[in-house]
Amino acid sequence: MTEVKEFEAIGVQDYDNWLEPKKFTYKPRAMGPLDVDVKIIACGICGSDIHAASGEWGRPYSPIAVGHEIVGHVVAMGSEVGTRFKLGDRVGVGPQCGSCGHCSRCTNHIENNCRKMVLTYGTPYEDGTGTQGGYASHIRANAKWVFKIPDGMETIHAAPLLCGGMTGFSPLLSAGVKKGTKVGVSGIGGIGHMTILFAKALGAEVTAISRNDKKRDLAKKLGADHYISTSAPDFPEAYYDSLDLIVNTASTFSEGHIKEVMNLLKPRSKFHFITAPPASEKVEIDPAFFLMNDYSIGGSASGGPSEIQYMLNFAAEHEIKPWVETIDINEENVSTAWKRMLDGDVKFRFVLTGYDKYFKD
Amino acid sequence: MTEVKEFEAIGVQDYDNWLEPKKFTYKPRAMGPLDVDVKIIACGICGSDIHAASGEWGRPYSPIAVGHEIVGHVVAMGSEVGTRFKLGDRVGVGPQCGSCGHCSRCTNHIENNCRKMVLTYGTPYEDGTGTQGGYASHIRANAKWVFKIPDGMETIHAAPLLCGGMTGFSPLLSAGVKKGTKVGVSGIGGIGHMTILFAKALGAEVTAISRNDKKRDLAKKLGADHYISTSAPDFPEAYYDSLDLIVNTASTFSEGHIKEVMNLLKPRSKFHFITAPPASEKVEIDPAFFLMNDYSIGGSASGGPSEIQYMLNFAAEHEIKPWVETIDINEENVSTAWKRMLDGDVKFRFVLTGYDKYFKD
Repeated sequence: MTEVKEFEAIGVQDYDNWLEPKKFTYKPRAMGPLDVDVKIIACGICGSDIHAASGEWGRPYSPIAVGHEIVGHVVAMGSEVGTRFKLGDRVGVGPQCGSCGHCSRCTNHIENNCRKMVLTYGTPYEDGTGTQGGYASHIRANAKWVFKIPDGMETIHAAPLLCGGMTGFSPLLSAGVKKGTKVGVSGIGGIGHMTILFAKALGAEVTAISRNDKKRDLAKKLGADHYISTSAPDFPEAYYDSLDLIVNTASTFSEGHIKEVMNLLKPRSKFHFITAPPASEKVEIDPAFFLMNDYSIGGSASGGPSEIQYMLNFAAEHEIKPWVETIDINEENVSTAWKRMLDGDVKFRFVLTGYDKYFKD
Repeated sequence: MTEVKEFEAIGVQDYDNWLEPKKFTYKPRAMGPLDVDVKIIACGICGSDIHAASGEWGRPYSPIAVGHEIVGHVVAMGSEVGTRFKLGDRVGVGPQCGSCGHCSRCTNHIENNCRKMVLTYGTPYEDGTGTQGGYASHIRANAKWVFKIPDGMETIHAAPLLCGGMTGFSPLLSAGVKKGTKVGVSGIGGIGHMTILFAKALGAEVTAISRNDKKRDLAKKLGADHYISTSAPDFPEAYYDSLDLIVNTASTFSEGHIKEVMNLLKPRSKFHFITAPPASEKVEIDPAFFLMNDYSIGGSASGGPSEIQYMLNFAAEHEIKPWVETIDINEENVSTAWKRMLDGDVKFRFVLTGYDKYFKD
């Protein structure tokens, strides 16, 4: 196994011109005994990539390559990785690649809530090296955060599952969604469409919730049983108390709209958001509204390693296939994909491919 | 059974001088076939009484008598009440005395979330009569909202349970609190102390949370296993991830403080508030904080009729006895009690008594 000395990547050089990402090379941190080098073959473009690349979530360092829905092949392993992987294995890396390993969250398999989490991009490791994501030739990651892609699953379907799929699946598992649970999915985009697919696979009765009627047919094709447009004249009155859980996947929200959508919940039910709005955006809640309805609101992001592997296996078993549009990786195409995402012009997830054509071996 | 034609009460005549309540008489709405007249013998003074009397929650009408922790005896019944009560029965009325009866909330026994709820004071009935509470000689209420007080329970203990006790008990039931569940109770006052008593009765390991050290001994006497002062130098770091549920009973909160207290929760746990701050006060939440911790926040108020009767029976069985200070009802004493509550000077609940000395028969 040959350790790669330098990785190539495409990333933001200047946050003020973030829509013009450039190729750069970077030296990964020193190979640790538990690290795995993955030669990347595909990477989904998550909404988080836009938030991070644009600097909306802060400007930790540059150049920075985003991308945390990574699929590739194992090309090198540290001395203590053991037999979990062999060279050539097809594996995935999601939005996180480190945690402290010994706090109560880590030991309870909720490593995605570890207070010392290392994100796949945008977090400095302890040695000061900034993590770099999957718009790159390779990634070096701790084996704990590297997952086997089930054999029957296509690479382009696996990629978006690693962040978007997991993030949508986790609240369904936490809420104990099962046959007949009435689940609302608000926001029918990259992460929302995968949430619908997972909810259906769990047996839920799914209601797609969108701002207008444009996605009605798409939602039905995804398997949604019902569709609610929040601009319909009878909204929300006609839909009061119809849902056991709402998973909100919209990337921004204002209090007024949240209240209206929450009115679709039965009492003692939860509005669960799984996307982070710009760092400056807060949610203002009206206590009396909650008291009168016994609602709760909360959020989660991704899942721990055991949950991610479970999700991949579940998706393979239930043949969950995200709807993707592939696009060859290069500077121009990354820029184009980001711009189209800002316009909502993708059904529903871009996946960068063609890595072997762009990056040297 | 003799229907009483006119009720006496003490209430707010002028919201601008709410601390000077006056005696007044009022004509109750026409006796309905399902109504019960209760001659009041005691009423707890709930924090809600202060919010409502002061106009903080709005100024629906005046004069208005507050009080919704009411115990008395049945003195008249409508023709269709049936055999559930007999004249002379000792009964209670809580914060609600009506709901539509046919919505999904009502038919699922969550009548306390009915969108057409009638509150015991401060809500107009359909005929326009404003409801009047328990600082009064009598109350006329729909039998559905009148509860048998268990024989072994003292009147002065029963009164505070009807609102404060129920409101504290409900989130414990919703969360499935059982032996060993780690429950935090934030705010050790009227409603908070009852929440501690109920949590202990359910077998929880209870942590009392207060702004300073003053209530440490009281909390221990109430049965709390642990005590956290939020002004301690090691707060919140020393207590991270120690609780499965926090029931917040403080009557006001600011976002910063909520975040610090929420840090005591394990991931996937809930901060549940059961008191309503002034109507102008909102809670601002930071989405990223929730995403990183998988927390949720929500609230509830009181319980439905079946839950209230269950609570009373549970309290009797477990000998739950709120700590009360009795005070004879009259204009001056009501004013004094309210002022002392504003100063936090009661351990922990005032109960108005001496009704037979003040009101005519």
